Amino acid sequence: MIRLSVLYPATDGATFDHDYYRDEHVPLACRVWGLDGADIDKGVVGPYVAAVHFRFESMEAMQQAMAVDGMADVINDVANYTTIVPVQQISEIVA
Amino acid sequence: MIRLSVLYPATDGATFDHDYYRDEHVPLACRVWGLDGADIDKGVVGPYVAAVHFRFESMEAMQQAMAVDGMADVINDVANYTTIVPVQQISEIVA
Repeated sequence: MIRLSVLYPATDGATFDHDYYRDEHVPLACRVWGLDGADIDKGVVGPYVAAVHFRFESMEAMQQAMAVDGMADVINDVANYTTIVPVQQISEIVA
Repeated sequence: MIRLSVLYPATDGATFDHDYYRDEHVPLACRVWGLDGADIDKGVVGPYVAAVHFRFESMEAMQQAMAVDGMADVINDVANYTTIVPVQQISEIVA
């Protein structure tokens, strides 16, 4: 299993709409990528103000998901909730 | 629910023993903190070579876990698997 974590670093002067992220953006990404859901975090202490963790069966499954037609909609929707440039982390889930 | 993520940034010259981390360190932390388990990541692409995600019922539950007697054992065990100084992120799980 592969985890794709998208982490939004706290950034001076930046905004982040947590409600839109939870109610609109992450559901859109899940719909486009064919996922049942994702874990969404609202930062309390630490370098990130928000994060999401998606799971894919394999690297191939993740790459196929990223290549679908709706991908542009997902990317274009980012401007609707934040000005932060996120950090992406792809990891193998080992336990 | 609270997620405590401990993220190990890729660091020049640093080492990280993924087997020891999965088989010894994270189980020790779970035992000391009274948790059933945790999600362990091995980095593939991105800024972190490894990560772990623990879940606690509340901030109070997490703070109580961190205050137990065995905490020193958890901290002292870090030298057994890495020289990396980890980043800690505490978040509220919103979905």
